[in-house]
Amino acid sequence: MADIKRSGGVVEDIEKILGFIVEIEKLKDVYRKTKPVGLDRFENSAEHSWHVCLTALMLKDFANEKIDINRVIKMLLIHDLGEIDAGDTIIYANETSENKAKEAAGIGRLLNILPAEMADEFLALWHEFEAGETADSSFAKAIDRVPPLLHNIHGGGHSWKAHGITKEKVFSVNQRIEAGSKELWSVMHNKLEDAVHAGILK
Amino acid sequence: MADIKRSGGVVEDIEKILGFIVEIEKLKDVYRKTKPVGLDRFENSAEHSWHVCLTALMLKDFANEKIDINRVIKMLLIHDLGEIDAGDTIIYANETSENKAKEAAGIGRLLNILPAEMADEFLALWHEFEAGETADSSFAKAIDRVPPLLHNIHGGGHSWKAHGITKEKVFSVNQRIEAGSKELWSVMHNKLEDAVHAGILK
Repeated sequence: MADIKRSGGVVEDIEKILGFIVEIEKLKDVYRKTKPVGLDRFENSAEHSWHVCLTALMLKDFANEKIDINRVIKMLLIHDLGEIDAGDTIIYANETSENKAKEAAGIGRLLNILPAEMADEFLALWHEFEAGETADSSFAKAIDRVPPLLHNIHGGGHSWKAHGITKEKVFSVNQRIEAGSKELWSVMHNKLEDAVHAGILK
Repeated sequence: MADIKRSGGVVEDIEKILGFIVEIEKLKDVYRKTKPVGLDRFENSAEHSWHVCLTALMLKDFANEKIDINRVIKMLLIHDLGEIDAGDTIIYANETSENKAKEAAGIGRLLNILPAEMADEFLALWHEFEAGETADSSFAKAIDRVPPLLHNIHGGGHSWKAHGITKEKVFSVNQRIEAGSKELWSVMHNKLEDAVHAGILK
């Protein structure tokens, strides 16, 4: 067994972090509005978070601006934690300020389980993601929209149908991808046009 | 819609990456041997991958050696992809060379969906993780063991009981955590001793 020479602060900090690690397990029980390709169940926000991190990592070279992929991945690892208290909201819904406030309070509650400096650092990163105004956050937000589109494209448009989302809405809302990557939006735009021609997006 | 000025290579590369992104959805259907704290279902390897990335990020300051947390996170994002073809193996099982070969073949198949240079880069990273000999991979491997212990500690030792894992085996197998972080192992060791005293680890 390790013999810790440092003061009690180390153990206290590790205990706080492990408390956080246990608390965020709850994201595995927040369900989204689309089903992963090939699976007959809805996706949870924890597995979605993993998926968007790898999507960002693999597509990093197609960002419009110079980005720091490591910051992008950190943002995407924490971007949905606010949903533990607020729940998931479909991207096509008009987000209310009430829901936004609930998510902000939720991420604050969770991060405050961590040692103080860490909480401050990640809260700032979360707010940067939410605002979506920097190169890193703009790319992260673009990437966040890609897997749900793939779920619909490869899954008969199940979520578009279930929620009555029109093609006009799908094109206009997801054009936001272009702000992060023009090249990625071009490819996704073509895939959405194919979905219209196939009759799964109306 | 974006107007792509570059050659067709860009679109081809994006298409390959999106193919990979869809293929790795299958990790969301690989089930592990423990249940997330508070949930009455087994954990899948995709949500586990997200969880260990955040565990590593938050505990990075407690690594024994100087590590590059960004490389550690990349390793952990891909570390279980081989399970899509090989399935999950409990850490207490003696890993057979047959299963190892299956995982190596599986990760090779998946990464080869990507553009060639990317496949090479991530295959090297996966092999580094598997070998566990560098500072980064040693820490990543230590972190990988923490959440399943927390699942058992906070979940009545459900997986230890179901698989007949003794306390001797739990202590000896997880002592590997010490090679990545002596401080973390010290804290986890105490928690395991508490689990013995509480009668959930025998």
